[in-house]
Amino acid sequence: MNLTIKKKYLQDAIQAVTHAITSRTVIPILSGLKFDVEDNKVVLTGSNSDITIQTAIHAMIEDVEIISYAQPGSIVLPIPHFSEIIKKLPDETVHIEVQDNFKTVITSGKAVFTIYGQSSEEYPQIPIQENDDPLLLKGKQLETLIKQTVFAVSPTETRPILTGVHVSFEHNSIVFTATDSHRLALRSFPIDTADVSERESVVIPGKNLQELTKLITDPEATIKISFLHNQILFAFNETYFLSRLLTGNYPDTSRLIPTEKETTIHAFTKDLIQTIERADLLSSRDQNNVIRLDTLGDNMLEISSNSPEIGNVEEQLEAIAIEGEPLKISFSSRYMLDTLKTIDSERIQIDFTGTMRPFVIRTPEDENILQLILPVRTF
Amino acid sequence: MNLTIKKKYLQDAIQAVTHAITSRTVIPILSGLKFDVEDNKVVLTGSNSDITIQTAIHAMIEDVEIISYAQPGSIVLPIPHFSEIIKKLPDETVHIEVQDNFKTVITSGKAVFTIYGQSSEEYPQIPIQENDDPLLLKGKQLETLIKQTVFAVSPTETRPILTGVHVSFEHNSIVFTATDSHRLALRSFPIDTADVSERESVVIPGKNLQELTKLITDPEATIKISFLHNQILFAFNETYFLSRLLTGNYPDTSRLIPTEKETTIHAFTKDLIQTIERADLLSSRDQNNVIRLDTLGDNMLEISSNSPEIGNVEEQLEAIAIEGEPLKISFSSRYMLDTLKTIDSERIQIDFTGTMRPFVIRTPEDENILQLILPVRTF
Repeated sequence: MNLTIKKKYLQDAIQAVTHAITSRTVIPILSGLKFDVEDNKVVLTGSNSDITIQTAIHAMIEDVEIISYAQPGSIVLPIPHFSEIIKKLPDETVHIEVQDNFKTVITSGKAVFTIYGQSSEEYPQIPIQENDDPLLLKGKQLETLIKQTVFAVSPTETRPILTGVHVSFEHNSIVFTATDSHRLALRSFPIDTADVSERESVVIPGKNLQELTKLITDPEATIKISFLHNQILFAFNETYFLSRLLTGNYPDTSRLIPTEKETTIHAFTKDLIQTIERADLLSSRDQNNVIRLDTLGDNMLEISSNSPEIGNVEEQLEAIAIEGEPLKISFSSRYMLDTLKTIDSERIQIDFTGTMRPFVIRTPEDENILQLILPVRTF
Repeated sequence: MNLTIKKKYLQDAIQAVTHAITSRTVIPILSGLKFDVEDNKVVLTGSNSDITIQTAIHAMIEDVEIISYAQPGSIVLPIPHFSEIIKKLPDETVHIEVQDNFKTVITSGKAVFTIYGQSSEEYPQIPIQENDDPLLLKGKQLETLIKQTVFAVSPTETRPILTGVHVSFEHNSIVFTATDSHRLALRSFPIDTADVSERESVVIPGKNLQELTKLITDPEATIKISFLHNQILFAFNETYFLSRLLTGNYPDTSRLIPTEKETTIHAFTKDLIQTIERADLLSSRDQNNVIRLDTLGDNMLEISSNSPEIGNVEEQLEAIAIEGEPLKISFSSRYMLDTLKTIDSERIQIDFTGTMRPFVIRTPEDENILQLILPVRTF
């Protein structure tokens, strides 16, 4: 194997696949990066038990020569050493040559590095095969689906299925749902390119989706999603992101969503965030950061909290409108802030059905977002 | 106590004194911030067993009214709650009123916070008294004295005196010295404003000096240094920084500094840093990151390292000049990088006296800096 390549492209590709590489792996060779040189491209692969990331660098990109010499071959190189070396090279071009016994010589400017690789024959076979009719989403859509739901997955393994985001299909829409059983986040997008009504739902580990969003840098890129046996494959630009799926039955969350409402508050998102952030400062850490909301009349709200031994805070806030019954309710400031901070809309609407029923946060512009929080009993 | 003050000034002052406040204190009241309102200023104090920081906000700053109402009084307020509340207040102005039982009401815009303070009579008396003839330094000078020495203090308490920076006076210069017994950093500045030959030397804990540099934001500010019994006081702008001193005899380091040289290397600082950073990547972690330097002739150097099981690197570098005997020497890349990164000079000079003797790093422009590193025996 022998390769002369522009450093910058190699560095970016290494950075992408190292998201999947960890030194804490039960299969030692997976702590390395698989490096395949073909005639007109280089393919890098990183993997752990949860995700596999593979990316290719082509010899020519838009008439610019990225790879000036390539003699095919394959090797597994140690991480983080290989990525740190490439990052610090003195010259714009790097030459990589594999010699006997997987000894790999990396030359750039006057610097000559020799590192010991491993045989790529030891590396597990990870078949990456797209569906014939993958589902298509824009980068921005997938990012929104993830961002507006993934924060609500359960952080604990008490019910492992709840650590994932449920991906389902309804009325030609794709629906992402997450819940830790105290709150629920739901985001959908209509899909007009394919009939999705026959597709089965899957559950993707939340932390894998968080890694995936780090790789989606182009909001306009087309993401091709393939549903495989026990796995899901995201393909975009020259990158593949393969994630395992969670097995088990995801709970039916549709019955949690109230169909009626007694009080509706319309407010400016930013004002509400700032007032709740102040109440959060003196919310009791022992009681899940519970804060209180009271309607006052004249479209005024009062948001308050009380932390025994430290102090309390009360603040009045003018809503855009308050409709329906007067309300006193308590809830977690953290859950409310998590939700409000993922909403891009300037205004929000909150529908309450009494003090002890879950309440629903929506935006007036976009019916595809629904956030639900269970109140805390304090009265 | 009753106060109306511009939030921004209060927030900056709180930020300064909280550098001295920790929740891990054996005297519980020191986990709070002492807040004294006088007729025309507010004085904030934070303290732990090591350092005390006190800062004042005057009613008028350059014809701008900072404090619009003040009724004197004193209270100790809980940290981090008080600082977090001030930071998040909705309005530019804040009103603070102490009511019965040290209940403190903080009002800004429509937000009303109540927090429970403590009696300032419980707070330890910390006398802050400047010398009649304090030593004067510019902010930039003190920052340089600290920055170019403090990294070399010992990180361990094996010899507690070495965790401090030795401050002494020689030939009308102030001299900062730090050593962990493997390396030594020395920086001096001539002082022409006062006769310092009679002053006694002191040893200041290195971590306290690191806290002090965070507060020195104005390079042109005059720092007044007072030498007190077992303590040292730095006064600048409206701030006092009081540090305890270390007791014990600081070793005589002058005999460590070689008076002769066999080989001198002149090099560009940035080139040398980058080459050593690359060698550092494959220096052995088990052996204190040792790297090797060989002179080659024609003003060329070779810098190399070898990490068993990972690999090795060799790089040639053109020096500005190499004088004297050929040289092969090994040393810690980390020590060398710590030193080179504190040097602002474009060029450096390294004087060697053979493979096993300490070598000295200087700059051609400034004779007040001297850095010494002990080599590692590898031959």
